[in-house]
Amino acid sequence: MKIAPLSGFPEFLPQDRAVETHILDALRRTFELNGFSGIETRAVEPLDQLLRKGETSKEIYMLRRLQGSDHQESELGLHFDLTVPFARYVLENAGKLLFPFKRYQIQKVWRGERPQDGRFREFVQADVDVVGSSELPAFYDIDVPLTMVDAFSHLPIPRVVIRLNNRKVAQGFYEAIGAPDTLAVLRVIDKLDKIGEAKVEKELIDDAGLSHQQAQQALRLASIRGTDASVAERVRDLGVSSPLLDEGLEELVTVLEGANELIDGSMVADLSIARGLDYYTGSVYESTLVGHEDLGSICSGGRYDSLVSDGKHTYPGVGLSIGVSRLVSRLIGRHLVQASRAVPTVVLVAVNDESQRRDATKTAMALRRRGIAADVSPNSAKFGKQIKYADKRGIPFVWFTTDEGDQVKDIRSGAQYDADTATWMPESEDLQIRVTAA
Amino acid sequence: MKIAPLSGFPEFLPQDRAVETHILDALRRTFELNGFSGIETRAVEPLDQLLRKGETSKEIYMLRRLQGSDHQESELGLHFDLTVPFARYVLENAGKLLFPFKRYQIQKVWRGERPQDGRFREFVQADVDVVGSSELPAFYDIDVPLTMVDAFSHLPIPRVVIRLNNRKVAQGFYEAIGAPDTLAVLRVIDKLDKIGEAKVEKELIDDAGLSHQQAQQALRLASIRGTDASVAERVRDLGVSSPLLDEGLEELVTVLEGANELIDGSMVADLSIARGLDYYTGSVYESTLVGHEDLGSICSGGRYDSLVSDGKHTYPGVGLSIGVSRLVSRLIGRHLVQASRAVPTVVLVAVNDESQRRDATKTAMALRRRGIAADVSPNSAKFGKQIKYADKRGIPFVWFTTDEGDQVKDIRSGAQYDADTATWMPESEDLQIRVTAA
Repeated sequence: MKIAPLSGFPEFLPQDRAVETHILDALRRTFELNGFSGIETRAVEPLDQLLRKGETSKEIYMLRRLQGSDHQESELGLHFDLTVPFARYVLENAGKLLFPFKRYQIQKVWRGERPQDGRFREFVQADVDVVGSSELPAFYDIDVPLTMVDAFSHLPIPRVVIRLNNRKVAQGFYEAIGAPDTLAVLRVIDKLDKIGEAKVEKELIDDAGLSHQQAQQALRLASIRGTDASVAERVRDLGVSSPLLDEGLEELVTVLEGANELIDGSMVADLSIARGLDYYTGSVYESTLVGHEDLGSICSGGRYDSLVSDGKHTYPGVGLSIGVSRLVSRLIGRHLVQASRAVPTVVLVAVNDESQRRDATKTAMALRRRGIAADVSPNSAKFGKQIKYADKRGIPFVWFTTDEGDQVKDIRSGAQYDADTATWMPESEDLQIRVTAA
Repeated sequence: MKIAPLSGFPEFLPQDRAVETHILDALRRTFELNGFSGIETRAVEPLDQLLRKGETSKEIYMLRRLQGSDHQESELGLHFDLTVPFARYVLENAGKLLFPFKRYQIQKVWRGERPQDGRFREFVQADVDVVGSSELPAFYDIDVPLTMVDAFSHLPIPRVVIRLNNRKVAQGFYEAIGAPDTLAVLRVIDKLDKIGEAKVEKELIDDAGLSHQQAQQALRLASIRGTDASVAERVRDLGVSSPLLDEGLEELVTVLEGANELIDGSMVADLSIARGLDYYTGSVYESTLVGHEDLGSICSGGRYDSLVSDGKHTYPGVGLSIGVSRLVSRLIGRHLVQASRAVPTVVLVAVNDESQRRDATKTAMALRRRGIAADVSPNSAKFGKQIKYADKRGIPFVWFTTDEGDQVKDIRSGAQYDADTATWMPESEDLQIRVTAA
């Protein structure tokens, strides 16, 4: 049987999985400190739910039972993000949830991409969202991205900057300059990073129906960056105005200044950000890992005022999603982080001879009861060989039972001293696998 | 659009997800204390890998890309357990792993069951396995199930007892009494719990080709239970013997007595246990949640000496798997456990009026930096209303900013006192969501 990796389905060796686990734990801890409840949704959704967001319909993996014959079941597909399942979960459980409902969700998602370089078909996303019942206060447009900034600040990674735009600014501006199809303009502008200004200008004219002058205006808007109210001034300097544009600019400046007052340097306005998805209605966010701009946005999202609706009642929301697998793969691939060891074990209990294995196991059990990860040597070879066994795995301590009592050896320094299972405790930095920036 | 639960795909409300998370965390912690490294494998395997274990081929969910046209890709299916993917992972990474390799793996698995009562189609398994290169010492047959016993002892659940049998005992015995097809006998004996002795006897004769007397012998073997070497005596009293049976009985008694010496009462021999899977070669385990015998085995596994093999090299292993979803659903469904609150937040920072929201947010940020989960009131209504907001969510404390300084109120007792974000700390039992037996 052929055993080979599957393109697009990344897997880690234990030491790299320890890095991923560390990052997932840190995200979860920050989300909880910020008051978000964890939920998990099933991996599958009915096809009609998944197709609410028509754009990505190409990327769905559908399920069929290998030996299934009955066709009465509804068609099921694997979720391709966590927002669509969350919207469904909120509607399904609306009567049992308390609003505003703050939830985080860390799960795998799947996209049936063509096998090609660098695209994951299975990856982990970490999402935070807040939804309100009927209304959701504007300050969550500040709080939710700052939760992500807080989370990133606890990871062993370079600085992350949130880039902000507002759908009302783009839509209001495009309408005011007379664009025939504002969504078409948005979709072309979204390609700026990928295909560059010249090609975008051509597409704005050819595909989005803008005149040369309108295309120039749209590109001027997209070139604006800034960290304070001057951003709005520079938009107004373009000589375009409309009530929707004004509303968008006010929201944009409020979020931008609010975020930077709470965490200085956390957010910049970037009026080129479009976000391809139709359901955003206000703030939209992308994020840059400083020094790794080529990676694209590692955390994106926005405000959606009408995504979650059963027709009668609407639950407006705002949320962001981290592409954890992309981030972790970069960190590991570039050796930017390292785990202190590949196994959780901090101390290996040596075995004098097989007749004393049970005593060694009892020693390990006593240590574990006190929160010390302990393993027992799988053999009773010479001590040098047992020490080597620990050393190869990065286990820092070896425990010996001698006629004069128990001793523990720090195999890094060679120091060996008397120890008691009831009192011995390794340094806190050795107790668990440590993951640090390299 | 119709929004409804999907049969077989359980989802939890936030307070119940908190219970599940608590249990998963406790399992992971015990597995790590016992020296197991965590890994995750992709959700999909090529069909030929999944079909190595022919029996369950019916239950596989296959994937197809909704808009896929190219048929060059190998057929992929969702994994239905974590043992088959682990076997593939070991072979794929054998050159990079250190043996004996102790790994735990906590992931969802999927089975394309017909929609019927009580069967999950998506559920979480938590597995521990040890595999060696070429050989694996016998004491792991004791250590690995005791890791599960250790894990269960840290959960808010009734006592769990591991039930032990040995494939060599069953096979040796059936061969010695002249059964024409020992696997057929094993498959029928496996149904004892479900269909009872009378029907099993009939099937042993009709389907497994035993005589009436042979069927009686097989049933007598299956009726033996015990916690020490007397089990072997009672098997020998049946007047049957063979080298394989003797080998099996020796292994059985060694594991049984070894486990009970290390953790008294942890294991009983139960010679009716068959485990349907072909790949077990020695010890086999099931587990009973005392008082919930109707739930069936919540943790099962065994020794497999030749499952993991590339034809040239073999990696014998022993492992057990907990059916976490089945266990958690029972705990929640019968109200056997409870979470102290539905949100991680321990303190809600009240907002005097909207102009002071930013100060309230800064207070919350200061508390979070010290590891205290804090949220900010979404409104600046009268304090009574803000306290009610906390109360409905089970948040025990509300923080007030007054002209005389900050104060915190324990809304359970009504006590209110001066507090400082730099020093205040709730009782440790309030700090996080607590999950306890009800």
